[in-house]
Amino acid sequence: MRKVLLPLTLLSCTAIAAEPPAATKPLTTAEIIESATPSDWRRLDPADTLYLDLASGRVVIELSRHYAPGHVAAIKAFASARYWDGLAINRVQDNFVVQWGDPDNRKPLPKDLKPIAPEFSHATDKALPFTALPDTDGWAKQAGFTDGMAAARADGQQWLAHCYGAIGVGRDNAPDSGHGNELYVVIGQSPRQLDRNVAVVGKVWRGMELLASLPRGTSGGLGLYEKAEQRVPIKVRLATEVPAAERTNLEVMREDRAVFAAFVEARRNRRDDWYLKPAGHIDVCNVNVPVREIGVRP
Amino acid sequence: MRKVLLPLTLLSCTAIAAEPPAATKPLTTAEIIESATPSDWRRLDPADTLYLDLASGRVVIELSRHYAPGHVAAIKAFASARYWDGLAINRVQDNFVVQWGDPDNRKPLPKDLKPIAPEFSHATDKALPFTALPDTDGWAKQAGFTDGMAAARADGQQWLAHCYGAIGVGRDNAPDSGHGNELYVVIGQSPRQLDRNVAVVGKVWRGMELLASLPRGTSGGLGLYEKAEQRVPIKVRLATEVPAAERTNLEVMREDRAVFAAFVEARRNRRDDWYLKPAGHIDVCNVNVPVREIGVRP
Repeated sequence: MRKVLLPLTLLSCTAIAAEPPAATKPLTTAEIIESATPSDWRRLDPADTLYLDLASGRVVIELSRHYAPGHVAAIKAFASARYWDGLAINRVQDNFVVQWGDPDNRKPLPKDLKPIAPEFSHATDKALPFTALPDTDGWAKQAGFTDGMAAARADGQQWLAHCYGAIGVGRDNAPDSGHGNELYVVIGQSPRQLDRNVAVVGKVWRGMELLASLPRGTSGGLGLYEKAEQRVPIKVRLATEVPAAERTNLEVMREDRAVFAAFVEARRNRRDDWYLKPAGHIDVCNVNVPVREIGVRP
Repeated sequence: MRKVLLPLTLLSCTAIAAEPPAATKPLTTAEIIESATPSDWRRLDPADTLYLDLASGRVVIELSRHYAPGHVAAIKAFASARYWDGLAINRVQDNFVVQWGDPDNRKPLPKDLKPIAPEFSHATDKALPFTALPDTDGWAKQAGFTDGMAAARADGQQWLAHCYGAIGVGRDNAPDSGHGNELYVVIGQSPRQLDRNVAVVGKVWRGMELLASLPRGTSGGLGLYEKAEQRVPIKVRLATEVPAAERTNLEVMREDRAVFAAFVEARRNRRDDWYLKPAGHIDVCNVNVPVREIGVRP
């Protein structure tokens, strides 16, 4: 019997490139990605990169250079201070978030800790990069990308969107109660209702499968682990504080390039033989921005 | 130190009900659900209910009475024939699907097996229930529900949408190549590009956390398990073929009721103290339709 499978999500899909290829057969998504030149890729800056190491492998997080600078600085300071050593992932709520921090208040926070301004959105200005998608959704006037991270615009404001892999800062009811020591990652359908209510600080570029496959917690309707021994130990380090030979060096496709536009169009309108009805649309949270691992540069 | 957490997704949220409550404080989502009367709930018909039993627990699937009747009949026949006994979940692709079937072609299919007409969408008519959401997305002209399952409308057609928990029939390139023996469940951001390209046959009402937390496969870029021993054994039974005492009896909130409209509005505009900026919008795939377990009726 023939195997009946859904098609490859990446490799078997073909595309209408922004510039039509010479051949009559449209390029596959893989071919589009392969056609990217070195300048079409952006290397993650180790100074903005956080490694969340689990026993099962490494999660690579990029902290945004453009949004929530106060929160990002706080997170870097917690990482440098080894704040999360001995702490763990303590919450995995199905179709929502994975979260780590200090639910038992074991780690004292600095006594002089100052509240961080909310930074839940940012005034739209020319200094803040944004490459619009051709499509919109119902959550905002415009959707697009900043450094490959899903973003949205409305009302003169711009913010990072809660898509799969987005990382944000847990907070209490007070808008300035998020210190950056409790972080969550989206693991399900994009909870866009959180947009503009929390500081989104970055994105997981590698290792989502390690977070999303963790056992769900069952406590409090929040996905908290019932018992401390269920928690998943973590080690969090800034990439700059890891020896170069132990780093994971990633490059992300730049969104302001023709090759990215071709990639998006190939996802908006799937042209491989499996698809009967291309959607002619894509949601910003469905664009899996290309990322690749590279060797250590000499 | 105070715990810094994201808010409860369900219990702590408050609502503006369709009919404003007498009290000035808006009802919480939990209060809205509690206010539902028995007739606001629909009990799953055991004849349309499939149990996917794993070592870790039970996944409860409802097969739609309204969409893809040819595929649904085929699935019921496979279940009654114990077709999946000895087979397993063999594919878990992160942020996409969990799939089970017969990748090694161990189980012969009936020799007289006839192709099933595609059934990827259905002409919109009065006999096909549809309760519209107030909001739309970019994937279709209208979004809504049929029996609590996310659905969409455009071009005089209507179909079940690929939201988290939707179950569909894997197929090859030929539109009629899906026999119903290879099934998949959506476990990530809704892959709506699949809409109208596959027969969606139903929805998982309970046990998504068991499927979504399975280890991801690493083979072929498809999430296939590399080794046969990684596969997850399954037992699939129609609820009618399980003794009444062993059934899981679920009720789903009916979408054509005022209480459901109040529930949706409470999710569109979160009014609890945590939210600063209610979205004024919801995506059909973000509406977690209320479901509850009930005792066996005498």
